[in-house]
Amino acid sequence: MFKEVFENIAKKSPLIHNITNYVTVNDCANILLAAKASPIMADEPSEAAEITSICSGLNINIGTLNERTIKSMFISGERANDINIPVLLDPVGAGASTLRTNTAKELIEKVKFSVIRGNVSEIKTLACGGGATKGVDAAEEDAINNNTIDKTLELAVEFAKNTGAVIVITGKTDIVTDGEKSFLIYNGNKLMSSVTGTGCMLSALMTAFIAANNDNVLLAAAAAVCAMGLCGEKAIDRMTAADGNSSYRNYIIDAVFNLRADELERGARYEIR
Amino acid sequence: MFKEVFENIAKKSPLIHNITNYVTVNDCANILLAAKASPIMADEPSEAAEITSICSGLNINIGTLNERTIKSMFISGERANDINIPVLLDPVGAGASTLRTNTAKELIEKVKFSVIRGNVSEIKTLACGGGATKGVDAAEEDAINNNTIDKTLELAVEFAKNTGAVIVITGKTDIVTDGEKSFLIYNGNKLMSSVTGTGCMLSALMTAFIAANNDNVLLAAAAAVCAMGLCGEKAIDRMTAADGNSSYRNYIIDAVFNLRADELERGARYEIR
Amino acid sequence: MFKEVFENIAKKSPLIHNITNYVTVNDCANILLAAKASPIMADEPSEAAEITSICSGLNINIGTLNERTIKSMFISGERANDINIPVLLDPVGAGASTLRTNTAKELIEKVKFSVIRGNVSEIKTLACGGGATKGVDAAEEDAINNNTIDKTLELAVEFAKNTGAVIVITGKTDIVTDGEKSFLIYNGNKLMSSVTGTGCMLSALMTAFIAANNDNVLLAAAAAVCAMGLCGEKAIDRMTAADGNSSYRNYIIDAVFNLRADELERGARYEIR
Repeated sequence: MFKEVFENIAKKSPLIHNITNYVTVNDCANILLAAKASPIMADEPSEAAEITSICSGLNINIGTLNERTIKSMFISGERANDINIPVLLDPVGAGASTLRTNTAKELIEKVKFSVIRGNVSEIKTLACGGGATKGVDAAEEDAINNNTIDKTLELAVEFAKNTGAVIVITGKTDIVTDGEKSFLIYNGNKLMSSVTGTGCMLSALMTAFIAANNDNVLLAAAAAVCAMGLCGEKAIDRMTAADGNSSYRNYIIDAVFNLRADELERGARYEIR
Repeated sequence: MFKEVFENIAKKSPLIHNITNYVTVNDCANILLAAKASPIMADEPSEAAEITSICSGLNINIGTLNERTIKSMFISGERANDINIPVLLDPVGAGASTLRTNTAKELIEKVKFSVIRGNVSEIKTLACGGGATKGVDAAEEDAINNNTIDKTLELAVEFAKNTGAVIVITGKTDIVTDGEKSFLIYNGNKLMSSVTGTGCMLSALMTAFIAANNDNVLLAAAAAVCAMGLCGEKAIDRMTAADGNSSYRNYIIDAVFNLRADELERGARYEIR
Repeated sequence: MFKEVFENIAKKSPLIHNITNYVTVNDCANILLAAKASPIMADEPSEAAEITSICSGLNINIGTLNERTIKSMFISGERANDINIPVLLDPVGAGASTLRTNTAKELIEKVKFSVIRGNVSEIKTLACGGGATKGVDAAEEDAINNNTIDKTLELAVEFAKNTGAVIVITGKTDIVTDGEKSFLIYNGNKLMSSVTGTGCMLSALMTAFIAANNDNVLLAAAAAVCAMGLCGEKAIDRMTAADGNSSYRNYIIDAVFNLRADELERGARYEIR
């Protein structure tokens, strides 16, 4: 199931337009190349629409948004809708500032997103105005655990229905839902949260998955989450005593580079609800 | 002594607001995570104050300043003062352009800094208008050596008294002084100057140290310098014949990730004057 | 021949002003340090000329251009011409948007470039308006192969004559020509195209080569292409089964760090036409 979804990336080598933050942008570019997709970064309003027009997917990440790049997010988002290529929103830090919260909300109003992917605090903020964001990380009281998973899933399902987007909430357990069918995903390793931008990288990678599988966004988004988590697990196996989060970052991207479709198929750990 | 200072970071996990350059920003984020602090990067004036308000420390680095981000530096700096969280200034390239020199000087006038950290040329430029900056690196004629250490320390002491900030001058020997008590620090390895942004990384890391130890900024700043230098030494031990500055960068961040408080206590090499 | 050219970098340690994209900027800085040059990044119009004035070379890369940084490109380019330091243009994505194509063309009109370095699609776009750029990568139909090499060389020679710049087209075979004498270069490995920014890194590195050898730009540009390709080959030798494009990136920069002048002399594979 995930096998074909993953193989489609190498087959189609989709060009992905990223309007993203300058903190993790290099890792986003390299993870797209690792998955055999192609990245292009462009955030100037006067070229935004034209760049989107030559791409197969658009990744909007508000991690270091500013007035100029916000304009490009709207321009490119609307163009992507016009030409029917999938758009993903990563609302980094929604809840941490009014600008972030409002920009994310307005984007959701004006642009039809195929996927909205964030941590639980960010999604809560956008879905019901109540997240407890700690900067760009989920607040501890929001953490997905056995006690809260059902409630969080319910929130995601509701938000998916309201927006028409596939909602992806990442954390210890990841949730991927289109409002009808939901994946609970168990891949990953907690060390991933010690690497800056694993969320951003997943968003970039996921945009390649959905761009190459635009007819099945839910499945593509779930496959991307499993792929990233599985690569986080494979990367752990390489860690030596002296290695830390910087080497781990390299190993994760390396693992995406070496990931085989059948390995993803076998290694994906999830349940469907 | 340094042991508790370092342990406080993991204990408090301070969120650090970084307004910093786009060259080394990823390494700054990862070194903060390595030290068990949390990074957030935000440089848009319309959200700057709000982001600062949720943080425990502010790191201002002028490495790729522009008109927009300069505004944010002032806004966030003033907000940080209002809410009594420590602010660090890294005056990258002060002396290399009028804009950098003037921005750093105006920031020092308008914002009360807990720490000002730079190389000797940058600090000379700000303290007495006479550094010989070679771009973003210290000029050779400014280098701290046995002949110049006393004079450089004197300059730092004077600058500390004038600004009320702890002054940190990094080089072969590092100086940390509050004008009353001074640390001369001998940790580090000269290869660190072949990695872009080791200064920026130290500034980010140091902001976490002082955020978690706001009642003893001098000790926290000295501990941060020792920690960074010690990690530079530990990273050298991992270097193979084929390794160069890129692997060394990873090893330094990894070393911070794996640094233990007792190891810092034992490995710190300094004298107090 | 290349030996002296390469040794001149370490001897002169040229300071290189980079106005470049935020995607690959960290790798550009580290590769310059690896080659014993010094990087400075500055893209604010109000300091652009002053920063250029203290440098020995200027690297203009339009990878994430915006209105503000475009201004700096013109200001710094003109200042570099005034003070007779070499300027390199990397027209990233020329052909992918009108803004990129026009900016590159106008820069070529207003600034005298020592070198223009791009992939075949970018150079075709600028030389004759007909490249088939796929985002920031060369389109497959433009690829340099045995059938097209003569025609591509002809195009490069013509473009060199028209601009007065050394033209560098990188691909499977690399072309370096001043319109009179041409190098066809065979170093490199195809995996380099799976690392984001190997083109940008080469441009930064090449600026150091030409800055240290301003009296022989053609030879310096050819030496830089050979050096980068050779380091790509050396880096391949370190790759383990688990390594991917992220580790490869580190190994390439490491290889530049460890490159010896005699090794470059012996390892360079090229023919002169």
